[in-house]
Amino acid sequence: MNGLIMDYPLTTTTILKYAKSAFPHKKLISYLPNGDRHEYTYDELEKRSCQLANALKNKLGITKGDMVGTFAWNHYQHVELYYGIPGIGAICHTINVRLSSQQTEFIINHSEDKVIFVDATLIPLLEKIAPKLETVEKYIIINAPENFSTTLLNIIHYENLIENQLDTIDWPILSENDACGMCYTSGTTGMPKGVLYSHRSTYLHAMTILSPNAGNYSNDDVILLIVPQFHVMAWGFPYMCLLTGSDMVMPSLHLQPKAIIKMLESEKITKANGVPSIWMGVYEEMKQNPPSKKLALKEYLVGGSALPASLIENFENDFGISGVQAWGMTETSPLGTASRLQKKHKALSHKEQIKIRAKQGIEFPGIEMRIVGDNGKVAPRDGKTMGELQVKGAWVIKSYFKTNNRDNFTDDGWFRTGDVSTIDADGYMEITDRTKDLIKSGGEWISSVALELALMAHPKIKEAAVIAIPDKKWSERPLAAIVLTDNSTPISDDELKEFLSYDFANYQIPDNYVTIDLVPKTSVGKFDKKEIRRLYAEGKLN
Amino acid sequence: MNGLIMDYPLTTTTILKYAKSAFPHKKLISYLPNGDRHEYTYDELEKRSCQLANALKNKLGITKGDMVGTFAWNHYQHVELYYGIPGIGAICHTINVRLSSQQTEFIINHSEDKVIFVDATLIPLLEKIAPKLETVEKYIIINAPENFSTTLLNIIHYENLIENQLDTIDWPILSENDACGMCYTSGTTGMPKGVLYSHRSTYLHAMTILSPNAGNYSNDDVILLIVPQFHVMAWGFPYMCLLTGSDMVMPSLHLQPKAIIKMLESEKITKANGVPSIWMGVYEEMKQNPPSKKLALKEYLVGGSALPASLIENFENDFGISGVQAWGMTETSPLGTASRLQKKHKALSHKEQIKIRAKQGIEFPGIEMRIVGDNGKVAPRDGKTMGELQVKGAWVIKSYFKTNNRDNFTDDGWFRTGDVSTIDADGYMEITDRTKDLIKSGGEWISSVALELALMAHPKIKEAAVIAIPDKKWSERPLAAIVLTDNSTPISDDELKEFLSYDFANYQIPDNYVTIDLVPKTSVGKFDKKEIRRLYAEGKLN
Ligand SMILES: Nc1ncnc2c1ncn2[C@@H]1O[C@H](COP(=O)(O)OP(=O)(O)OP(=O)(O)O)[C@@H](O)[C@H]1O
Ligand SMILES: Nc1ncnc2c1ncn2[C@@H]1O[C@H](COP(=O)(O)OP(=O)(O)OP(=O)(O)O)[C@@H](O)[C@H]1O
Ligand SMILES: [Mg+2]
Ligand SMILES: [Mg+2]
Repeated sequence: MNGLIMDYPLTTTTILKYAKSAFPHKKLISYLPNGDRHEYTYDELEKRSCQLANALKNKLGITKGDMVGTFAWNHYQHVELYYGIPGIGAICHTINVRLSSQQTEFIINHSEDKVIFVDATLIPLLEKIAPKLETVEKYIIINAPENFSTTLLNIIHYENLIENQLDTIDWPILSENDACGMCYTSGTTGMPKGVLYSHRSTYLHAMTILSPNAGNYSNDDVILLIVPQFHVMAWGFPYMCLLTGSDMVMPSLHLQPKAIIKMLESEKITKANGVPSIWMGVYEEMKQNPPSKKLALKEYLVGGSALPASLIENFENDFGISGVQAWGMTETSPLGTASRLQKKHKALSHKEQIKIRAKQGIEFPGIEMRIVGDNGKVAPRDGKTMGELQVKGAWVIKSYFKTNNRDNFTDDGWFRTGDVSTIDADGYMEITDRTKDLIKSGGEWISSVALELALMAHPKIKEAAVIAIPDKKWSERPLAAIVLTDNSTPISDDELKEFLSYDFANYQIPDNYVTIDLVPKTSVGKFDKKEIRRLYAEGKLN
Repeated sequence: MNGLIMDYPLTTTTILKYAKSAFPHKKLISYLPNGDRHEYTYDELEKRSCQLANALKNKLGITKGDMVGTFAWNHYQHVELYYGIPGIGAICHTINVRLSSQQTEFIINHSEDKVIFVDATLIPLLEKIAPKLETVEKYIIINAPENFSTTLLNIIHYENLIENQLDTIDWPILSENDACGMCYTSGTTGMPKGVLYSHRSTYLHAMTILSPNAGNYSNDDVILLIVPQFHVMAWGFPYMCLLTGSDMVMPSLHLQPKAIIKMLESEKITKANGVPSIWMGVYEEMKQNPPSKKLALKEYLVGGSALPASLIENFENDFGISGVQAWGMTETSPLGTASRLQKKHKALSHKEQIKIRAKQGIEFPGIEMRIVGDNGKVAPRDGKTMGELQVKGAWVIKSYFKTNNRDNFTDDGWFRTGDVSTIDADGYMEITDRTKDLIKSGGEWISSVALELALMAHPKIKEAAVIAIPDKKWSERPLAAIVLTDNSTPISDDELKEFLSYDFANYQIPDNYVTIDLVPKTSVGKFDKKEIRRLYAEGKLN
């Protein structure tokens, strides 16, 4: 017997219509690539999204199931694309603008984008590969300056595209299982893989991350979306903000610490998201040039790489701003866990509290997680036993786009994350490493992430990346590549070994340390260990 | 093209499994009918729900689609029933224990309950009608005292039922559209009507009401569930608390102000729900016997009838506790809106802020609302134009159980609430009346609710109910039935008319006032206007 409840598909259009009805006066503020500040309301966002949807259908001939690419920064036009494209049943494919030409070409051809919406400042990147793009029929240019020229063929300007289009539309009725968005993984471990989200997964993810145990967002918040819209749908925030009626601030390419701090100040931002490297930069800048007034910022949500305990602690002690660690993957929409303290932790020392907050945290409802050891058995939740993290849930992929990766799934239907972690008795998950980065030395596993986080807690060290290097006797040994806080105060190998000996067994402590100027980073700011390994293999790390 | 996301049905079992995994140590505390305090963890709740599910299948022969009745107070066993019954695909039908024998008999026969789980203290109510119950095969007795006897046939004790059952189970895979629970309306306007919830609607409703714009619940909260589990699934709180990891406190029949205050104090309750009459009682008791220490209670969520602005104000001024008004119906699972201030309201005076908070508020995502005027047209959102409130959404019924009430739905698929309201430009809905209670005087509509709320703001008045009485000249005129705060300080008709003249036009002000000892209430504490009209018709109101 079915319940006698209305059919009410959870789609991106229900979100857009909701914001228009419940929060018409709430604001979407954009700092455009040319530096201009642009502001309008959710009511206007809805109207322009309708115009865009009409234009997609009438002028570009986009129909249900078509792939529409975006190659753009965070701003209102990109948010309109987030609603206009899926609203008519097409798929909003956000292309990472920081990938190599080879990767970008691969992704666009692989996804079969029919048109691409591109920011004027990013056109040079597409011009280079345009002749090799097999499916793209048109380019729609966003934010073009007056004196604009390009070698791209078949271009239309965004404003010309939508002008004169009706600002209302009879949205088609979609199934909530229809595809709505697509994003490729960051390519940290290999070639990016395509992930196809449904309307349902997008809605449920957005609805979940706003909850108090997760990001805790309400109509009182002004949220800065530092995570790019080309990276896992900006973690779903452009959908979430319309569900909560939070004001949304979009920085486009103004992502330098100084620029971010200026927006935090002038827009009275209360919450923000971002990867750790961004927040490290913001912290350092604030440390050097403390803001004249206490910021309105209460909390920043971090994911993508491990948030060091030292950063949580420093930000909080120096500026009263809390870091909340979240874990996720492109394959999980992305957010799956977050780490917040619970009542039972209130009695713990500050140090112990930070330790818990530096874990990746507890899964959200809608997500299940387990760790599976080398023996193929589900590992106990003892905070010690390591194993591969496996997840399932309402916003987890069941396969990649046009790829038959059965290896990424278990026979009983769980997704294999490729992350190695522990889960403690209270349910807090902690990432130890990626499967591909774990170091096996003399038959024992060594966590590169644990070493990195420990090293980065040393005041003389700004960043540290640890990789495995081949070793005759032990098969592998860790090598630590270190960036100094200040080049005039170096640190000796012995000092480092002594420092690590508090927390690590002897065999886990690296014998080798090299000082580098900068840790190579991926397109989304993660430590690029492929690149560090390459440098080492080429003898360039000494 | 479908998204490539896992099938992951949203069921009550996903909620139960989630709590076991994420919040095993969180607590469910019950004050049992005999006064004993009982406490266990969500881990134990899950295990006992498995035992119950096994017993339902193995011992009672319950199968998918069967209707299982509960006739019980709020306590852990009733929560086990909330998970155990739907977990195996049966339907948890919660029967209101405060209805008349005639209504109870009607509901049980109409729903075709196969077994009924009944609290020992409530058995006398069932004994009276048992011979007329056509489908009930067995009664399972909860919380029976030692020296227990009953005339009910085929009884089993709850603990005997589940003892020796396995505390694990392979939960069947259900569709999220399967029926999960059933509840009849309160019977304020006529015979109760059956509403059949699905797993999906139950999950989505629970997931939505925890959000910061709604109830704002997290794993930091200790929540007192004053709303009975036999009344619209306790507003979904027994599901919501497991999603948030809030501790849950269950008062069973200890619902007197003194008892509630004792629980607020000893359990350090942070949030609670309840109808206005409960909170009015608690406020008065606290006023007379102020607690020795500031309560941990931050907020109470109110629905079911209008929360008077005066109560919001007094509770806040005297005790620093906020009232949040919500609106809902059995037909909407129940919660559909809540009223909270937004940033833009911060500049308003306290008085104006209270006015907004006394509205029924903004719809939640997943719910759409509109008002339709007498002319059949959607009314403007101007805060003035009144019309029938119509809703649709992911937890709104599409029909009643075994009843073909097409009148309750519009041709374009909206549910007609039978409430009359306005919506203002910011989207705040305000209930003016029920369709059946509106007063039409000289061709103009008068809102009985607005008059009641205004009268209750007078310090000499404790409660006031307004009904229409027939009038030769004007067709109908309002009559106000008043309960005095203190019988020794009466109030004259002229004083009342003068008082009302600040906010009401002359024709809206009642000519007639009668003092009564108590406003008759329905099974769930609403003003029983059917009863007041009957008393008036019989000449008993003078
Ligand atoms: N809070 C976190 N702490 C540590 N690692 C994290 C955290 N959040 C995410 N990660 C890492 O990021 C990964 C997901 O990143 P993303 O989906 O952007 O692509 P990628 O895994 O970096 O790239 P590819 O899969 O193409 O190699 C996770 O599997 C995990 O290794
Ligand atoms: N915050 C509120 N303010 C004013 N009225 C409210 C509020 N919340 C609920 N109500 C009233 O309660 C009604 C829903 O109550 P419920 O589902 O318990 O049954 P009922 O309508 O009282 O009974 P029946 O439908 O059987 O006559 C709403 O339609 C509305 O009239
Ligand atoms: Mg990956
Ligand atoms: Mg009703």
